[in-house]
Order: sequence, then C-alpha cells, then structure tokens
Amino acid sequence: MVGGGQGAFIGAVHRIAARIDDEYELVCGAFSSDPEKSKLSGAQLGIPASRTYGSYQEMYENELLLPEAERVQVISIVTPNHVHFGPAKMAMESGFSVILDKPIAFSLAEALELKKISGHTGKRLALTHTYTGYPMVKEARQLVASGKLGEIRKVYAEYPQGWLSTFEEGGTNKQASWRTDPSQSGIAGAMGDIGTHAFNLAEYVTGLQVARLCADINIVVAGRKLDDDGTAMLKFNNGASGVLFATQVAAGEENNVKIRVYGEKGGLEWQQSDANTLVVKSLTGPAEIYRTGGKYLGSFATHNTRTPGGHPEGYLEAFANIYRNFALTVRADLDHERPAPECLDFPGIEEGIRGMAFIERVIESGKSDNKWIDLKIE
Amino acid sequence: MVGGGQGAFIGAVHRIAARIDDEYELVCGAFSSDPEKSKLSGAQLGIPASRTYGSYQEMYENELLLPEAERVQVISIVTPNHVHFGPAKMAMESGFSVILDKPIAFSLAEALELKKISGHTGKRLALTHTYTGYPMVKEARQLVASGKLGEIRKVYAEYPQGWLSTFEEGGTNKQASWRTDPSQSGIAGAMGDIGTHAFNLAEYVTGLQVARLCADINIVVAGRKLDDDGTAMLKFNNGASGVLFATQVAAGEENNVKIRVYGEKGGLEWQQSDANTLVVKSLTGPAEIYRTGGKYLGSFATHNTRTPGGHPEGYLEAFANIYRNFALTVRADLDHERPAPECLDFPGIEEGIRGMAFIERVIESGKSDNKWIDLKIE
Amino acid sequence: MVGGGQGAFIGAVHRIAARIDDEYELVCGAFSSDPEKSKLSGAQLGIPASRTYGSYQEMYENELLLPEAERVQVISIVTPNHVHFGPAKMAMESGFSVILDKPIAFSLAEALELKKISGHTGKRLALTHTYTGYPMVKEARQLVASGKLGEIRKVYAEYPQGWLSTFEEGGTNKQASWRTDPSQSGIAGAMGDIGTHAFNLAEYVTGLQVARLCADINIVVAGRKLDDDGTAMLKFNNGASGVLFATQVAAGEENNVKIRVYGEKGGLEWQQSDANTLVVKSLTGPAEIYRTGGKYLGSFATHNTRTPGGHPEGYLEAFANIYRNFALTVRADLDHERPAPECLDFPGIEEGIRGMAFIERVIESGKSDNKWIDLKIE
Amino acid sequence: MVGGGQGAFIGAVHRIAARIDDEYELVCGAFSSDPEKSKLSGAQLGIPASRTYGSYQEMYENELLLPEAERVQVISIVTPNHVHFGPAKMAMESGFSVILDKPIAFSLAEALELKKISGHTGKRLALTHTYTGYPMVKEARQLVASGKLGEIRKVYAEYPQGWLSTFEEGGTNKQASWRTDPSQSGIAGAMGDIGTHAFNLAEYVTGLQVARLCADINIVVAGRKLDDDGTAMLKFNNGASGVLFATQVAAGEENNVKIRVYGEKGGLEWQQSDANTLVVKSLTGPAEIYRTGGKYLGSFATHNTRTPGGHPEGYLEAFANIYRNFALTVRADLDHERPAPECLDFPGIEEGIRGMAFIERVIESGKSDNKWIDLKIE
Repeated sequence: MVGGGQGAFIGAVHRIAARIDDEYELVCGAFSSDPEKSKLSGAQLGIPASRTYGSYQEMYENELLLPEAERVQVISIVTPNHVHFGPAKMAMESGFSVILDKPIAFSLAEALELKKISGHTGKRLALTHTYTGYPMVKEARQLVASGKLGEIRKVYAEYPQGWLSTFEEGGTNKQASWRTDPSQSGIAGAMGDIGTHAFNLAEYVTGLQVARLCADINIVVAGRKLDDDGTAMLKFNNGASGVLFATQVAAGEENNVKIRVYGEKGGLEWQQSDANTLVVKSLTGPAEIYRTGGKYLGSFATHNTRTPGGHPEGYLEAFANIYRNFALTVRADLDHERPAPECLDFPGIEEGIRGMAFIERVIESGKSDNKWIDLKIE
Repeated sequence: MVGGGQGAFIGAVHRIAARIDDEYELVCGAFSSDPEKSKLSGAQLGIPASRTYGSYQEMYENELLLPEAERVQVISIVTPNHVHFGPAKMAMESGFSVILDKPIAFSLAEALELKKISGHTGKRLALTHTYTGYPMVKEARQLVASGKLGEIRKVYAEYPQGWLSTFEEGGTNKQASWRTDPSQSGIAGAMGDIGTHAFNLAEYVTGLQVARLCADINIVVAGRKLDDDGTAMLKFNNGASGVLFATQVAAGEENNVKIRVYGEKGGLEWQQSDANTLVVKSLTGPAEIYRTGGKYLGSFATHNTRTPGGHPEGYLEAFANIYRNFALTVRADLDHERPAPECLDFPGIEEGIRGMAFIERVIESGKSDNKWIDLKIE
Repeated sequence: MVGGGQGAFIGAVHRIAARIDDEYELVCGAFSSDPEKSKLSGAQLGIPASRTYGSYQEMYENELLLPEAERVQVISIVTPNHVHFGPAKMAMESGFSVILDKPIAFSLAEALELKKISGHTGKRLALTHTYTGYPMVKEARQLVASGKLGEIRKVYAEYPQGWLSTFEEGGTNKQASWRTDPSQSGIAGAMGDIGTHAFNLAEYVTGLQVARLCADINIVVAGRKLDDDGTAMLKFNNGASGVLFATQVAAGEENNVKIRVYGEKGGLEWQQSDANTLVVKSLTGPAEIYRTGGKYLGSFATHNTRTPGGHPEGYLEAFANIYRNFALTVRADLDHERPAPECLDFPGIEEGIRGMAFIERVIESGKSDNKWIDLKIE
Repeated sequence: MVGGGQGAFIGAVHRIAARIDDEYELVCGAFSSDPEKSKLSGAQLGIPASRTYGSYQEMYENELLLPEAERVQVISIVTPNHVHFGPAKMAMESGFSVILDKPIAFSLAEALELKKISGHTGKRLALTHTYTGYPMVKEARQLVASGKLGEIRKVYAEYPQGWLSTFEEGGTNKQASWRTDPSQSGIAGAMGDIGTHAFNLAEYVTGLQVARLCADINIVVAGRKLDDDGTAMLKFNNGASGVLFATQVAAGEENNVKIRVYGEKGGLEWQQSDANTLVVKSLTGPAEIYRTGGKYLGSFATHNTRTPGGHPEGYLEAFANIYRNFALTVRADLDHERPAPECLDFPGIEEGIRGMAFIERVIESGKSDNKWIDLKIE
C-alpha cells in the first residue's frame, strides 16, 4: 500500500475492502511520505518493520529483492491525486498490478501515459469508482444492456454532498484541505472528487459515452480555490441527453449519489441511500422493486453479493467487489485462464482516461461562453 | 366557466376544486366552442339551459343583463392555451374576476397586455399553478423567508412525466393532441405545460427570480412538433445557481414534481408523491420531517389545511387552496377589507408573466449556441 | 345533517366529502342539540333558517311536510356514538336513506336493531369506514379476491396514533373529551374509535371474517376512563391468523393506518401515509408498486379515482368515495336499476354489526383470563 | 472455528465479520463433523492441514499442546443449535473465549449451565444477535436510556420473512432442513430462529425485560415439524406492553426486522431495510432522521461506525461490531484493563439465557389455553 497512514480516510477503506473476501493480505507499505509516520502506521497495522518503507520507490526496489513467492503482488495506491501517476507507473514497470484510488491521475496526459505503460508491461490496473461496485448498479447495467428499457433517451446523474458548505480547509480537516488544494487535487474540486463518480456511473449503467457537454462550474464558498459545485448538461453518443450535477455545498446532504435512466420502454432509478434497491419502471405496468439477493437477478448482481436477500450490503462491500474482481482477474491471468466477464467487471484505465477527460472538459466548459464542448480524447 | 366540457381533464378538476370549500357555485358556462356540446355539458352539470352558452362572449353579455345578485362573479377559464387571452381580457373588461388555467396566455405579449387590463379594470386574476397550493410548499416558502436556511445557494427543480414517451397525438388522446400542437399550445410543449410549473415552484419557494438560463430543449419522439423534454441551468438574482428539468418522455414516471433548495445553513426537499411531507435538512443536526397538520407549522401551511395531521390531502385540495384563497381575497375586496397575506397567497398575473418569459427564453436558449441568456422582461 | 355544528371535526369532513362529486346538496340540518347553536351553524353554512332545526325529530317531521321534490333524501349523522341509533332509526322509518359516521351504534344490540329496521323499511345505510374508500385498498381487495396471493395466511392490521399520549379530556379539546367518555363513546375508547377501522380494513381487504380473538386492552394514561391502547391476536374463518393493534398513545404517530396481508403466493402492503401506493409482493419475483391511476388497475380502483396517475388523492377523496357510491346506489334504486358492484361497494349495516361485535368481544377478551374468545353474532 | 464448512451460510458470515476490522486471524478449525469435509474446507480457507481438525475435541486438545503465543484464543462456534453447548462448554473449560451463533443452546438448562461454566472458568462468551450490532440500534438504546422518550409504554417488534412459505425441507436446501428439524433446532422453529432476534432487540433497545407473554404459535405449511409463524403479546417489567411477531411464511418478505418504541414524550422506529436511519418522533415537534455517521450521535453509535455519514454500512458490519467489541474486551482483559462500556456492549450469556427462556415460554404459551405466562428464569 502506498499512502493510507494515520488520519487517512480512504486508506482504511481500501484495507477493509481488501480483507472482506480474503483474497488479499497486507504485506508491506509506504504509508506516508514521512518515513517516521510510515513506520508508526506500519507498526499499528502489524506490518513488520522490515517491510514498512519510507517511499514507494524504496518499497518496490526492496520487494523485488524478495523471492517471488513472498513478494508483494498488487500495489494499492491511496494517496492524494498528485501522487497517483508516479507510484502507479513505477509499480507497473516493476511488474506489480495496481489498484488506484480515483481519479486515475492529475491530468489526462498522465492517464494516457498510464495506458501506454499498462500496454507494454502487460500489468493490470483497477480504479476504485466504488459506486459501480454495488450489485444493483451492476443489475442496472445488465438490464440496460439486455434492451429491457429500449434505446436510452434520458440520463440523470447526481451527487449531492454538504460537507464543504463552510470554509473547512487549512485547519485540522485533512480531507477538506487536500481536496480543495489545486496542487494536490488538480484543476477540479467537486467535479474531480465526486463529479467523476457520477460521470462513471452514468457511462457504466448506460453503456453509452458522453459526446458533448455544457457546464456551469461554481466556487460557492468564499475563499475556496477549486469548484465546490457544478452542473453539466450532457449529450451521449447515441443522441440521448442528460444532466449531471455534483455539489459539496448542499447543506444537510450526506453522500447520496443517484442515477435515473429512461429509455423507450421504461426507466430505472438507483440511489446509494437505498443501495440494495433498484426501481425498474415500465411504460405500461407497475414499477418493480429489484432487491439485492433476489433470485431473479442477473449474473453480475449475483456474483457481487455475499448474503441472501434482506441482509443489506453497503459501501464497504461495493468497494470490496472491486478488490475481489480484480483479484479473480489477476489470479486467472496467473493461471493463464480467461477471466469471466463478471470478474473483468471492474473500472480500469479506460474509465480513468474518460474520467480525466471529463474533468478537463467540464472545467473548460465552465469557463467558456460557448455552449457545447466535445468530450473527445485525442 | 369557459371550456371544460365533456372529455376535458382540467375542467373537472377546477370544478371539484371550486366545490371543496363551498366558496363557489357553478352558475353558468360556455363549456365548448361547439354550442351543441356546450348545451350537453351544461345539462350534465345541472346548469339551466338558459345559462349554458355557446361562446364566452355570449355568456358575458347575457350575464351582464342579469341583476347583480344573480350574475356570475368569477370566470373560470380552462381552455387550451390559445384561448386564454381572449376570454380573460373580455372577462375583466366586463367586470368579472378571473381564474385561469396556466400558462396565462399564448405569448409574453399577451400576458403583459393582461396585466394592463387588470390594472385599469381593477379586476383580479388567479393562475392555477397548483403545486404552490400544497401546504408543505407554502411552509417551504415561509421557512426560506424566515432565514432558516440562510442565503440560498442551490435550487434543483424537476418535473418528470412519461406519458408522451410514444407518439400519442392525432388520435383519441385529446390531452396529447392539443398539448403537442403549436397552434393550441404555443411555442413550447413540455416546457410550457410542466416546465412552467417547475419554474413557478422554484421562484415561489425561494422568493428569488431567475436572472439567466442556459437550456437544452429536445424533441425526443419522432414526428412530434413541440419539445417533449428540456433542461435549463439557472442563475438567480442573488447569485444562486440551479437546474430545472421537465420531461414527458421519462418512461414510467407519473407526475412527480420535486424541489430541493440549499442555503448556507440547511436545505429542504419536497416532492408531490409525498406531498404532505417536507424534509428540512441541517448542516449540523438531524434532518426533520415536517408534516401537514403539524402544530409547529407556520401560518401559511396551517391556513391551507383542512384536516388534522395524518389525514393526507392531495392534488385536489392543493388546487382548491387557490380557489379558496382567491375567493377570500375577492370577498375581502367586496367588503372593502385588506385581504390577509395568507389569502393573497395565490399565483396571479406577475407569476403568469414570469412564466411566459421563461417559456420564450428557454425555447430561445434551446435554439442558441450562446451559453447564457438573460430572463428579462421589457 | 344531524350534528356537525361549530367545533366539530367530522361534520366538516362529511360536508366536503359530499360536495366533491356534486352528487349532494346540503338542504337542511339539526346541527346541534342546542337549537341556538344549530341556527348559528346553519346560517354559517348558508342553510335557510326555515330548514335549520333544533332536533332531528323536528327536522324529519318538518321535511316530511315538504313536497317530495324539495324534501331531503339522505340524512347524514355525524354525532357522537350515543346519538347514532336514535336518529338513524327514525330516519329510516321516516323514509330517508342514512349515512352514518362509524361506529354504527352504541352497542351491538342497537346495530342488530338497525338491521331489522333497514330490512322492513327498505332504506339503505352507509357507514363511513373511510379507509376502505381508498382506491388502492379497493385494488387490494380485488387482488385478493382474484386469487393472486393464493389462500390467505397472515393479516397484520395496525392503527397507531399519538394524540392521546397525555390527559387531554375535560378541557377545550372537544374531540378528546367525548371520545374518552363512556357515556358518549360506549364501552370502548381506542378500540371503538380506531380499532374498528383496522378491523373493517382487515375483513374488507381479505374478504375473510375474524372468528376468534385474544386481546390485551390497556388504559395507559392515568385517569382515563376508556382504553387508549389495545392489541388483538386474530383467527380468521379460513384458518389464517393475524394481529391487530390500535393505540392512541404512540407518541409522535399521526394516523398511519396500515395493513399487510400474506397468502401462499404473495403479499401486499398498504398504508395511509402513502395512500396512492399498494406494494404487491411475490414469492418468486420482484415486488410491484401499484399506483392510483395506473391503467393496469382493476375496476374498483379505477371507479374510485378522479385524476390521472401521479396526482395524489387523499383522505377527503376516500371519504367522498363512500358518499359518491352511496349516491349512485340510491339513484339506481330510485331508477329501479341494479346498482353496479363498484357502486354497491360501500360499508353498510353488516360492517356496522361486525364492528360492534368486535368492540364488545375485544373488550370482553381484554378483561378475561381465557385466551381465545369467539367473535360470534347471535 | 467449529462448523462453517462448505455450504454453510452463517460460517462464511462469521469469517467475514472477523476479518473486517483485522482483530482476528483464522488459525484453525473443525469445519465439519465429517473429517474429510473438514479437511477440504480447511484447505479452501488456507488453513494448514495440521490445524484442520476432525472434531472440536481434537482441536481443543491439539491446540492446547501448542505454545501459548501460537495457540488459538477465541473459538467461533457456527454449528446448528444442537451442537452449541458441547463445544462452548469444552472451549471455556479449555481456557478459550467463545463466540457463539445464536441461540445460545438447545435448551434453557444448557444455557444456565454455560453461565456457571463461564463463571468458574472466567472465560467470556459472545452471542451473535446481529441486529443489536447496528449503530442506529445502539443509538436507539442510548436515546431511551437518556430518557429522551420518557418512560416507555409501547414496544412493537417484528421479524417477517417469506422464504419458508413452501415446504423446502428435506431437499437440497440445507438451511431449511436443519432449521425445521426438532433434533437440530430444538423445540422452536421460527421463534427460535428469528423470534429470539426480535426479542433480544426489544429488550436491548428498551433496557426493559419481558415479564409475561401470551402467544399464538402456528405451523402454517403442511408437513412442517416446527412453528414457522408466531405472535406474542408482551408485558414488560415496568408495565409497558407490546407485540412481537416473527414469521417465515410472509410470502415476498425478505428479512426486515423492525422495532418501534413509544414513551411518554416520543417514539422511535428502526428497520433493517433502512438500517442507517433511526426515526425519532416527538409528541410536539417534527420527527427527526438520525443517520449513521451523524456528528450528533452518541458514543455507542459512533464507536460502531467505520465510515462517514452517507456511506451505508450493512449486515456484515453489524456482525463485525460484535466481533470487534468482543476482541477489544478480551484484549482489555489480557491487558488487565477495564473494557470501555462501548466495548462491553455485545450480547453474551445473559442475553442467551433470556433468549432460551423466551423460546421455552413462548412455545409453552402457544400450547396453553391460559392467557398470560410468566417469563421467569429459576
């Protein structure tokens, strides 16, 4: 693990996600850029001092000296955005597979570079767009792909939060500080932090790609350096249209990412606050309530569920689904087998590139007087 | 009543709304532009043949010949949009008060003309933007006005329907036919029919005005002549931003108009499908569930409720609130009293003008390559 | 109308319900046992002084002197329970049809007597068990009757209120005072006031009859004279079992009557707080959300709905359905036609008798050390 | 681990729960009474063959031969009910701490015996009544204890399932087979399997004890040997009353355990299908929505939450809370420290004894013609 020392939120989440299905063992780490803090964090996590490193470079180099059977296989990178590219690049070049917290990099250029590196090293990379790890989101995607809704016409994706409604940065709130700091987050604040999740969710569920967008990007709280709010009208590559909004100043909102999709024959609705439910709407009959664990669900939802119906699974399990599917895929690679489609179903470099393109274009659109901007990736 | 003969949906709704609080008696009508049909409808409604007329002109002229105590006092106009201006203008000029189905007219110019006529005749006009008639919407407005949410920052208004997901016009579906016909509806379809409701709701609850907008307007169903879908990004006169969408092609959706408003200190959420509930969110504490009939509610919600808490009131009662408040206001006028603020709280000509301006600008924006268009009324 | 003067809650509800569908006109009343108050109430309601009476006896006698075309046809009785039998008996004997607020009488004996009087006078009587007037409750009954759920096994009916959590009686709260007074309410408090509604709902939806019960009846608030809380375990005539509870001391609850029914093949759930929704559950597939106005609904729900899907109807409309169906039935009688099943679908004397039997037996069971008591009506 | 081999549901749940917080390592197991199957399961779980045993006796004996630092410390017993007592007794006598799937034993007598053994060995025992592991259930308990609701008056606990609506036993459904088999489950079916959870939830949240009960216990599905449905009316030791029902024949229901509690000043409502929400109701003001992760929550909810508000935690995390708190307590014991109240907050032998007493009395009541039966433990 790179990053994730004391005080980090997402590092702990990654570790739980890795443990849930017993496919991973945490064997080494460079938990902080401060070697002293890294040692302390390693000790707390029960990692031997010999494998607690002061930097990712040191870690990779030392691990490569170990016998293959003992050596780390997958590197989990949970640092702020500006420290994604370096450790991911070097990890793949050192022969390790990579799990990377989103967004994939600091810029689209870095993301495209990672694609090249993955290509020539043959190493895989998973990106933790957690929300597409929920079983009912996977069911939604499978339903759309099956044609049940007909051709898709409308997509509404939203991600409201309220925790940045006041000026939190610069104090003890480490999460607020780095996420609003351009030198650590990149060119986008809310749009990079949570807007990309909504974007990923929209493209994942529909199987479509955003072709054009028109955005309104705002800094609502005085003194903030990056956007804390934004909306984008979307045009998809099949002609469908949609709206995406992400905000961190919706006072009183927690984290209720939500998607609605409508096609010629019906619609669907999913939201994280009721994560085990997918409402499937029909042009003619009553709406149906699909529930995690239902025996009528498709192969993707079923593969990603651990308990029978009525035992709610949540955010950590959705996160764990990415870890588990990545493990099953890497294992299949090692066994020279073709991974099942249900195992290959984790976000990776392509999703990372599209996310970075979204960030760059949506910020560009926010500053532009022109209405529509193409989301194209050269 | 003008319009509202057999087969009409909204005419029957107006009549129920007028009856609920026993403030009105239906005494005459020109129920159809076809005198034969008008007679038939009048007979069904128990109106004497002598006061069932073949045209509104005939009705106004004949009613003026009656003694004042017997004469109709309020004219309810429930015709398609292109027959709003004429009967409303002549009604006011004939000395009648007017209740008009929304939108107020066929064009902004007509709406501005009605304002002048109201001004010099001194007659009042109510516009049935029903959704602002719900007690919990009134509570929302009063809460915002009280400063409980702090300065408003974000407004999300939406109005999804699915009933025009297929090509319905030209057949037996009278509702679909006139609403998609430019000669009866005007320049807008969905945006005029339901978008104006969402717009009115947003301005009513926040007490703000939309200053600029940027819209994406679509005809989704092939062959349709007017928009059946649209989205507008909004900028309000206090600097707040927002999104409004209205669509009639969200297959499986009924009529769930919804609004969310966020300020510096909290937020609120209301939707018609749970009309007796207003969720009030806080930056720091738990959200609260305000309910119709609650003793903690403000004067506007209380004034507009007929039953104790837990006895749900619905669409017809919201509609009736407009009728009742208009009656109380007109009665106060007759008694030379100043109507209470709770009675004066019905949509009128100003709301009608803003609605027409919204329609004209949002359609203009939909056709434009420029991003932001001012919503100004010359 | 008998009763329903100033300060009465349910009288005003009856009048709105009667007006909604324009099938009734309020022509006369004995609004209070105090002639002075009756006159005042009549004047407020726009009833001529000549037809505002000081007692129901006076009203019936005088109305019978009027020509048949002018005479009142239907008597609406909205007095406390101890003044149900007298005016209902005399009304039927005078040739009037009767709408009676529930429960039908002060005792089972009175209810049985009313049945006899109805039998030999040929006059009809409707009882306002409002909750079975909701379209989705009617749909539930029709679904069960259709066999969709298979043989019924379990029934859970509940009616929680909180408004009597403190000692309210004896003061200005007229509602609390008479409902907790044995001389006006009869032998039961909560069980008579709201328990009978839950009982009626359970028998209506399932089409079954309660055969035996075992009850726990409580006076929770010190000083109260009648039960304010109770639970009954139920056995139905087909062998199904169930639970019914009604309480007025569930602090914070409004009026959320709810029913759940389960059969061999599925279940259903309805509650007043979401009155336009019926959730239909399946042993094998996803649950379905039936909604008022849906085109897939049966004839009973459709007959009892005034607006298209998504325009919520509430308590007053449910109440109005009883009034409307009674009017359609009485009118068919007058026309010597057979009323349609959908019109005949209102609670009447049989439901009233069963309600009184429930009250007597449930109170008896509450006092008994024996477990099961038969609900038989001699 | 004792039990939990291939095909077992709850064994896998225990293992995930143990892993989530990294407080446990699975080091040995007797996964099946069939040594061959045990070996296979151990191999799958990555346990060395040397520590995969054919019986719990063999396991305990062999583990005791290992140096203390390598030896297993906590035994997790996940067998059917008839194999709870033996391995738990011997584990404690061998010096191991015990985590036991509920119910604690096959009979009340066994449970009382385990208490004695725990007493003289000084070993702790945790019982996985999972539902009291949810943060919002803990908040509910803390709120009641704080007096916020005033003296408790009413308790409604329910646990509806539908998965045994048809005759499932004797086939491939291993879960159905043992749970309906008296030789493995004991004298109760649904009441033991899920009724005890509802019972534990009711006593945990209220801090009260059930003093008397009156039950209706049914075998609904023909051919079944144990109850699949039951209801009990309850009287608590403070005079409060309540209802508990548990059923496995509510066709279409999943696993939605739910509790409602009402006191003099307010009420609360929690259900597993919306596990991160606790609705707190007030006699006078609006209800409040408490949410997992809220900064306004008490110490118990906060201690048992891993993620910020809006990241739903579910069943596995609730299960993990029992494991984690037990580990923290055992660790404090080893360190000769007093465990914090938040750590000691896991179900144990006392809860197990009360659960067994409930099972025995509720079944006895179901067979009795007497109304009330005392729930006393000699």
